[in-house]
Amino acid sequence: METINNNKKISELPILREEKENGCTLEGYDALLVMSETAKMRKLITKRGTLEVLIQLCCTTAPVRHKQFRKSMKGFSTRTLSNRLKELEKSRILERQRYNEIPPRVDYRLTNKGQELVESIVGILQWMRKWSDAKGVV
Amino acid sequence: METINNNKKISELPILREEKENGCTLEGYDALLVMSETAKMRKLITKRGTLEVLIQLCCTTAPVRHKQFRKSMKGFSTRTLSNRLKELEKSRILERQRYNEIPPRVDYRLTNKGQELVESIVGILQWMRKWSDAKGVV
Repeated sequence: METINNNKKISELPILREEKENGCTLEGYDALLVMSETAKMRKLITKRGTLEVLIQLCCTTAPVRHKQFRKSMKGFSTRTLSNRLKELEKSRILERQRYNEIPPRVDYRLTNKGQELVESIVGILQWMRKWSDAKGVV
Repeated sequence: METINNNKKISELPILREEKENGCTLEGYDALLVMSETAKMRKLITKRGTLEVLIQLCCTTAPVRHKQFRKSMKGFSTRTLSNRLKELEKSRILERQRYNEIPPRVDYRLTNKGQELVESIVGILQWMRKWSDAKGVV
């Protein structure tokens, strides 16, 4: 018996099966699908303040205190910072911990999902540093 | 003669000398410096439409025509698309080519700088696809 299988896997990104030697092709690539699948995440990642929060959690498993964020992110209003932290918590990228102390202490650490995100952001940060005008063209 | 060298290299990111075995520490890490060095680039990358333009140039060295962007990015106004393309060209991430044809044809390809950026964005796209609600939690 013959099995006919001509379903095209357009949902599979070439970026997931990238071959360094040959480069990867656009075969099966559907930019519209990627855009729709990643819409919600793109919106969060590109919001003002998101990368700035995540930068501070790069390469550490130690929690970062709320007041540490406030100190480092002086260009941002308390409201913006709070909203970003809430959204990142809701998206299960950050885990919020509140300690029953006086004065109250709140800190944030990355979840596994967040850790993976930060690892992928490191590549972009390195690119930014390499090509930023402040550092000159490498 | 003794050489005294106690300059701390706070400008060097731990992410640049990450050690997989031990993880990397915050030693010498200056989030404020990274933020200031990458400010201009972060602004561009997080603008509405930038990632959407770059997604279409992922994993291809072939140029993408202007009308192809318009077709794929229907949620964006012509003005937004044009501004992003201009900014990406000005930042030497994209190279614009105009062909002397009737009707006129314009296309864009990645520069080396752009190619490196897209390579680092692929990691985030993969993360987004892995964790997007549409795909379920992996």
